[in-house]
Amino acid sequence: MDVKDLFDNIKNYENKNIILEGWVRNNRNQSNFGFIDFNDGTYFKSLQLVYEKELKDFDSISKIRVGSAIRVTGKLVKSEGSGQTHELKVESIEVLGDSPEDYPIQPKRHTREFLREVAYLRPRTNLFNAVFRVRSVAAQAIHEYFQSHNYVYFHSPIITGADCEGSDQMFKITTFDFDNLPKNDKGKVDFKEDLFGKKAYITGSGQLHGETFAMAYKKIYTFGPTMRTENSNTKTHANEFWMIEPEVAFCDLNGIMNIEEEMLKFVIKYVMDKCPLEMDFFDSFVEKGIKDKLNKVLNSEFVRITHHDAIELLKKAEVEWEFEPEYGEDIAKEHEKYITEHFNGPVFITDWPKDIKAYYMKLNDDGKTVAAVDLEVPGAGELMGGSQREDDYDKLIKRMDEMGVDKDKLEWYTNLRRFGGCYHSGFGLGFERLIMYLTGVENIRDVIPYPRTPNNCDY
Amino acid sequence: MDVKDLFDNIKNYENKNIILEGWVRNNRNQSNFGFIDFNDGTYFKSLQLVYEKELKDFDSISKIRVGSAIRVTGKLVKSEGSGQTHELKVESIEVLGDSPEDYPIQPKRHTREFLREVAYLRPRTNLFNAVFRVRSVAAQAIHEYFQSHNYVYFHSPIITGADCEGSDQMFKITTFDFDNLPKNDKGKVDFKEDLFGKKAYITGSGQLHGETFAMAYKKIYTFGPTMRTENSNTKTHANEFWMIEPEVAFCDLNGIMNIEEEMLKFVIKYVMDKCPLEMDFFDSFVEKGIKDKLNKVLNSEFVRITHHDAIELLKKAEVEWEFEPEYGEDIAKEHEKYITEHFNGPVFITDWPKDIKAYYMKLNDDGKTVAAVDLEVPGAGELMGGSQREDDYDKLIKRMDEMGVDKDKLEWYTNLRRFGGCYHSGFGLGFERLIMYLTGVENIRDVIPYPRTPNNCDY
Repeated sequence: MDVKDLFDNIKNYENKNIILEGWVRNNRNQSNFGFIDFNDGTYFKSLQLVYEKELKDFDSISKIRVGSAIRVTGKLVKSEGSGQTHELKVESIEVLGDSPEDYPIQPKRHTREFLREVAYLRPRTNLFNAVFRVRSVAAQAIHEYFQSHNYVYFHSPIITGADCEGSDQMFKITTFDFDNLPKNDKGKVDFKEDLFGKKAYITGSGQLHGETFAMAYKKIYTFGPTMRTENSNTKTHANEFWMIEPEVAFCDLNGIMNIEEEMLKFVIKYVMDKCPLEMDFFDSFVEKGIKDKLNKVLNSEFVRITHHDAIELLKKAEVEWEFEPEYGEDIAKEHEKYITEHFNGPVFITDWPKDIKAYYMKLNDDGKTVAAVDLEVPGAGELMGGSQREDDYDKLIKRMDEMGVDKDKLEWYTNLRRFGGCYHSGFGLGFERLIMYLTGVENIRDVIPYPRTPNNCDY
Repeated sequence: MDVKDLFDNIKNYENKNIILEGWVRNNRNQSNFGFIDFNDGTYFKSLQLVYEKELKDFDSISKIRVGSAIRVTGKLVKSEGSGQTHELKVESIEVLGDSPEDYPIQPKRHTREFLREVAYLRPRTNLFNAVFRVRSVAAQAIHEYFQSHNYVYFHSPIITGADCEGSDQMFKITTFDFDNLPKNDKGKVDFKEDLFGKKAYITGSGQLHGETFAMAYKKIYTFGPTMRTENSNTKTHANEFWMIEPEVAFCDLNGIMNIEEEMLKFVIKYVMDKCPLEMDFFDSFVEKGIKDKLNKVLNSEFVRITHHDAIELLKKAEVEWEFEPEYGEDIAKEHEKYITEHFNGPVFITDWPKDIKAYYMKLNDDGKTVAAVDLEVPGAGELMGGSQREDDYDKLIKRMDEMGVDKDKLEWYTNLRRFGGCYHSGFGLGFERLIMYLTGVENIRDVIPYPRTPNNCDY
């Protein structure tokens, strides 16, 4: 039996004999009795085991070390202590796996930096146990949202032969021995000899492929790992992360904002419903007030403001900016922070200057801006970025030419505008950003099981 | 509105005016009326649109080409024709996106080989539309099975610095310019200069990392893309595929077989319930009898037989084998086929010779076999492979030494046996194999949106 099943129906197990298997989080004892904090990982809270002097194995039980795996037999009884309604009165304990005296995860406060160094043990601590369960539950929330709204889950390819997104951001992959590369007669590496018969990369986005499936299923989403080579050591960048990229045919920019807002609220509610203990823990120990913050989001209507009006707002603000806000330019972190605090909630910023956005975004009638939208949230900054896509073949080709994108390799993409094209939109959601927003954890390294960042690829 | 929502509650829409957006699959007309097969991709079946001479745009509607995107306004009425209960009586049609005369997907039979060449258009055909929707629904079935049984969805890393699985099967990744590689003073490529400061690979499995999380959560599963360099051009191999790898603490070999069986039945039932039209299509046009086959599996108990007994069975069979079955050896495709046909259903083959299995599998008391299990299914061969893991630290180390596995790089893995280790088991399920089994489609290239195989990395 899982401890979760026990807690979910705890009244049913009162005075019943039960057998559980799990791990010792703590073992405290006095001369006549002792307590074990017992946790099998399926439930955030530990179950208290009580063992008494009368047990013939009292002495050996009192010596069971933190971290050990045990099988416990006992009776579930009401607890007279504070902190729990029930506890397990131990009849016997079998140690399945010992743990040494110097086991790294002792019942005390460890720094997050130390725990990153023992990443393979950190999910055994309260903080990381809560973070990675919320990660799992939030992933399921995303699947449930899209599946229940008629979306098809699309597995975009990871390996690609087209460096159309700018190969400077893409990892190259090969089967070659680096110290023994085959060369062609010009002395260049001969990729005809490689597995795919050409240069191959890891894609940084599934969007273009996603559009092909949206033109068949109307509504699709991707949800998978993404790898980018960005050499950036910040709290919000990792070289491997998960991303969700929905794409919807017959949907304009307002439509896609509606979907973003509805989806985010669905995920927040789902996680708060399914992980109440974890959310209490974050509220107490990670980000005070996070539950209020998220509840407020559920009951708010997200602000929608154009990039032009956002800049105007920033220019009027009585703030000493590090980067002066400008109409034709991007918005800096400090600006995002001001805007979300000004509106005290999530804000959609729409209609961005075309020159700082991608070629596939729909040109607005003004000829200067594109139908792009970023969702900014308090604390986490940009959470989602989306756009209506350019569905006019000629305008798309013109934009690709202007921005130096290789049209020939993307004929399948531009052809979507010739073969029953239609207005359509999509967005990307960085999954780790979402988890940081939901948990209050500030460093992306602490929401990824085994983070990959520059000069860091351990485990 | 999605066409799926219309069909799900079609009675409610009778005699109502509705607006739909989608694509023209076919347009047939006579002098006084015409029919359009209209499909928006959310539902397998097309909706019939009827338009009549009285419409002022009759002539232009009758010329709308296959593949075009349209917006149609009309009234849903009962159909007097055969093949559908309802149809939409057209009031007006607006063409949102035209399609050329030579649009590749015409309403006729196309070969699968041709459709692979236009992979970005093939989900617009019945067969691929059905396959990739089943793929999506089956993925959700897997998530729902594990999430509802207290599993944590674990995102195992894709990039790894440890080539512990045998780097000959692993892609190497780099940010280097291949024609300009930095060299160290020995003339070798200097990976200290690369993004991670060392050689980096793409993992072929998340199992080892999965075990670390199973030791914290008891039950975890991975579900993500996997890349392997195998240079093998067969119907069942791809260089990029998706895999599910559950790992369960406090679970032995019998326990993991129970989970495999329960999960597979759950997924089959889920897909048959959610995709009845698609399953009818496969039954009629891809694998006759597939629904009976799957229904039988739901009502059967899977056979469990040891490798020894399986070989004995094969040796006794009056068959002229291409590969003679031997006790100490692997089982060939022809043997798998015989065994599943002999038992007329899925078969677990357990307790394999240790020398043909991985070092992490638990050594049985006989000292010769390991607690491994393969699930063989009729038609698709090996669908899942699992094992109880070696939880004895000394035995694991010995096996790693014998098989030349680098212990130093895997200290975090072997340490799991020192820090509260316990008996535990897991398995791997190749997602594409599952989709082939569920749909009857025989080539892995036809169940992956954009397949990557040797010398093939298009799109």
